[in-house]
Amino acid sequence: MKDILILKGNILFTKTREKFEIHKNSYIVSVDGRIEGIYAALPEKYENYPVTDYGDRMIIPGFSDLHLHAAQYLQCGMGMTKQLLEWLNDYTFDLEKEFQNEDFAKEVYSRFADDLVAHGTLSSCIFASSSTEGTEVLFEVLKKKGIRALVGKVNMERNAPDFIIESTEKSFEGTRYLIEKYKDEKLVKPIITPRFAPTSTEESLKMLGELAEKYNLPVQSHVDENIDEVKWVSELYPDSKNYLGVYEQYGLLNNTVMAHAIYLNDDEIEIAKKNNVILVHCPDSNINVRSGIMPIRKYLNLGLKIGLGSDIAGGHKIGLNEAIVRAIQLSKLYSMDHPEYPPLSVSEAFYLGTRAGGEFFGKVGSFEEGYYFDALVIEDDELIASRYSLEDRLERFLYIGDDRNIIARYVEGKKL
Amino acid sequence: MKDILILKGNILFTKTREKFEIHKNSYIVSVDGRIEGIYAALPEKYENYPVTDYGDRMIIPGFSDLHLHAAQYLQCGMGMTKQLLEWLNDYTFDLEKEFQNEDFAKEVYSRFADDLVAHGTLSSCIFASSSTEGTEVLFEVLKKKGIRALVGKVNMERNAPDFIIESTEKSFEGTRYLIEKYKDEKLVKPIITPRFAPTSTEESLKMLGELAEKYNLPVQSHVDENIDEVKWVSELYPDSKNYLGVYEQYGLLNNTVMAHAIYLNDDEIEIAKKNNVILVHCPDSNINVRSGIMPIRKYLNLGLKIGLGSDIAGGHKIGLNEAIVRAIQLSKLYSMDHPEYPPLSVSEAFYLGTRAGGEFFGKVGSFEEGYYFDALVIEDDELIASRYSLEDRLERFLYIGDDRNIIARYVEGKKL
Repeated sequence: MKDILILKGNILFTKTREKFEIHKNSYIVSVDGRIEGIYAALPEKYENYPVTDYGDRMIIPGFSDLHLHAAQYLQCGMGMTKQLLEWLNDYTFDLEKEFQNEDFAKEVYSRFADDLVAHGTLSSCIFASSSTEGTEVLFEVLKKKGIRALVGKVNMERNAPDFIIESTEKSFEGTRYLIEKYKDEKLVKPIITPRFAPTSTEESLKMLGELAEKYNLPVQSHVDENIDEVKWVSELYPDSKNYLGVYEQYGLLNNTVMAHAIYLNDDEIEIAKKNNVILVHCPDSNINVRSGIMPIRKYLNLGLKIGLGSDIAGGHKIGLNEAIVRAIQLSKLYSMDHPEYPPLSVSEAFYLGTRAGGEFFGKVGSFEEGYYFDALVIEDDELIASRYSLEDRLERFLYIGDDRNIIARYVEGKKL
Repeated sequence: MKDILILKGNILFTKTREKFEIHKNSYIVSVDGRIEGIYAALPEKYENYPVTDYGDRMIIPGFSDLHLHAAQYLQCGMGMTKQLLEWLNDYTFDLEKEFQNEDFAKEVYSRFADDLVAHGTLSSCIFASSSTEGTEVLFEVLKKKGIRALVGKVNMERNAPDFIIESTEKSFEGTRYLIEKYKDEKLVKPIITPRFAPTSTEESLKMLGELAEKYNLPVQSHVDENIDEVKWVSELYPDSKNYLGVYEQYGLLNNTVMAHAIYLNDDEIEIAKKNNVILVHCPDSNINVRSGIMPIRKYLNLGLKIGLGSDIAGGHKIGLNEAIVRAIQLSKLYSMDHPEYPPLSVSEAFYLGTRAGGEFFGKVGSFEEGYYFDALVIEDDELIASRYSLEDRLERFLYIGDDRNIIARYVEGKKL
C-alpha cells in the first residue's frame, strides 16, 4: 500500500538557478515521500485519493540551512558590536559550556528546534557544542520534530578556553559514540565537525578524517572567514599549502560543507571544485563579524557549489529567507565595486537556499520527480494575491514574510 | 486636574549617542503627556495614583521613521532586483496612481497605519502620493490611530508619467487645501513634500518654499541618492551650485529632513550644517536600489544631524529596528574599507532611530524631563531575561524582535 499525498495550490520551485518553475493552481503528488509529479488536472489514477486544497496559497520547497550553531541560539542578536574575541569569550564560549548540563541543553535545543521548524528550515547542518551529552540531547530533540538534520558534536582540542576543549581521546570517544548511536537514523544523522582548523590538532583532524571514511559520513567546518584567521592557519599548519588544503590533507573534503569561504585563493578554488565542496555563504554573519563579502558571482561563474547558512549566532536571524535576501543585498553592494559580477536574482538566491543547499541531503530542495516531498505552504493575503504575480508574491514572502506566513510544513510527504 | 500616568519596569533610552541610560526596575511618571521624572522609589506625592507594573519588561522610547512612502506600502519586497526605472514604472507609479481612488487609499493606508503602530513607529515623516484626495484619506486614517506623523501630498510636475503628475496650479491648490485643513492638528500635521528636484519645476519649488514660510511648515524630500541622479539634477538646474543647493535656493531648508544624502559634497555638507537639515539614512533602501553606503561616521564626526528611515518601499521592512540594525551592518562594511570611520555602536544607532529622529517632532524620542511620553513596552522571555543584561536584551530585540515583542504603545502618555 503506497503512501500517497496530494496537495493543490500554486507550486513554485527552482530546477535551475535562472528561473522559477511556476505551476499555477496545480496538483503535486507525493508517493512514499517522493515527488511523483505535478499536474494541471489530476490524473485519473489519483481521483479516489483525498486532496488537500491550499487554494491560492503557494507551495514551495523547504529551506536548507547549511551552517548554524544550535548551542549559540540564546545569544542571537547580542554582543553584535563586540570584537570577535570578546564576543567569543563573553557570549559564545561561556554559553557553549553550559550544554554539559542536559536540562539546560534540552530547554535551549527545544526552543531552537521549534524555531527552525517554524521558519521552514526543514534541512540543516548543525554545530552542537563539544559536549557529547549535550549533543545527544540535540539529536533526540530534533528526531521528535521530524525534520532533516545533520548534527555534529564539535571537536576542539586547542586554542579555546579549557572548559570547552577536550583531549583528542575524549573528543574521539564522544564522536564515535554518537556516530554509532545515530548513524542509521533516517532524518537526523551525524556529521563530522571539527570546529575549524585552529582549534583542532593534527592528530584530531587525522582521526576525524578516518572516522568520516570508515562510516562514510559528511563533514562540516569553517574556512577562510577572515584575513587574520587565514594567516593564523598558515602559522599553525606550516606544512599545508593553504587553509582548505589542511582539510583536504586529512581526508575531510569528500562530502563536505565549508562555511564562509570568503577569501579562497586560486588553489583553494581548485580544491573546492575538485572535491565538490559546498561553500556556505552566511551573509548576515559576514557583515556582523566584519568578515567581508563573499564574491559569490565569481564563485558561481567558476562552477563552485554554494549554499546558504544563517550562521546562528554570528548571523542573527534563523529564517533562511533572511539569508536569501541578505545574499541578494550583499551581491548588489559587491557589484557596485565589481561591475563584472552582477548581483544575484531572486530565483538564484532562492535556488541557493533550497535546491543547491538541499543537494547535501540527497534529493532535497526541489519538486522535480524523485525529490523528497519537503515543502512549505505560504499564505499572504487576498489584496496582494489579487494584484501581483506568483513570482512577486514569493519575493515578497522572502523579503518581508516570517514564520506567521508559513501555514504548513511537510517532510517526506508527512505534515509536521 | 492633571493627567498622570505611572509605569514601572526597566527603562532604557539614549540621552546621548554614546551610551544607554538604564533605570532597572524603576518608575517613569508622565504628567499631561510629558515626562516628569524617573524614580527608583515612587515619590510620596504619587502614591495615590495607579501604577501599571510591567515587571521585568523594558520600556523604551517609540521609534521615529523619518522617511517612508505610504503609497508604496503594498509593493514592499517586490521587484527588488529590477533596475530603478523599471521598478518605478512597473511597480511604483502605477500603484501611486490608484490612490486617486479613495476606497483603495483607505484600504491600503489603514493597513499601512496598523503596521506602523504594530512595529512601534510612533512618529514618522510620510510621503503619500500626488493625489490630494488620497492624501486626505491618509490624514484621516492616521488621526484615528493616535500616532504622531507629518504627512505630505507629493508635489511632482515633470519627469514622471502623465497620470501621476499635476500642473503647478493644481499641485499648489491641493497642497494648500490640505495645509488649511490639517495645520492645527495636534499629532498628524502637513509637511511640504516636493518628491525630489528632478520632478519639480522651479516655479513649483518657489511656490512650495513660500508655502513653507507662510505656514511655518517643515519640508521633506530626497537628495544625493545616487550618482546618476546627482548628475541629472546638475543638468536640470544649471544655475544651482549643487543638488542640496537647489532646495536651499527656494527656501526649502529651514526645517527639513532630506532622505539618503549619500553623496553630499563639501559645499552641500556646509549647507546641511548651516540649515540644521536632518539627513535621513535609509540603509535597506540604499542596498536594495544599489545606491551605495552613506558615510555616516564621517557625517556624525562633522556634526551633521542624522535620523533613520525605512524608506518603504525602497526599503522593505517597516520595523525601524531593522533600519537600526542595517545601519550598524552597513557602517561595519564601510569601516572595512575606511578604517578611520569606526562602525556605529548599538546605542548610537538606537539614538538615531529615537532621539535624533524624534527631534524633528519636538521633544520626542527620549525620556528626559519635558519630553513627550511616547513609549514602547518590550517583552522578551524569562530565560533571556534571567541570563542577560538589559543592554543585551534591548540589542536582541532590535536584532531579532518584531511586532510580537511590543506589548504596549503610548503616545503623549496615552495608551494606544
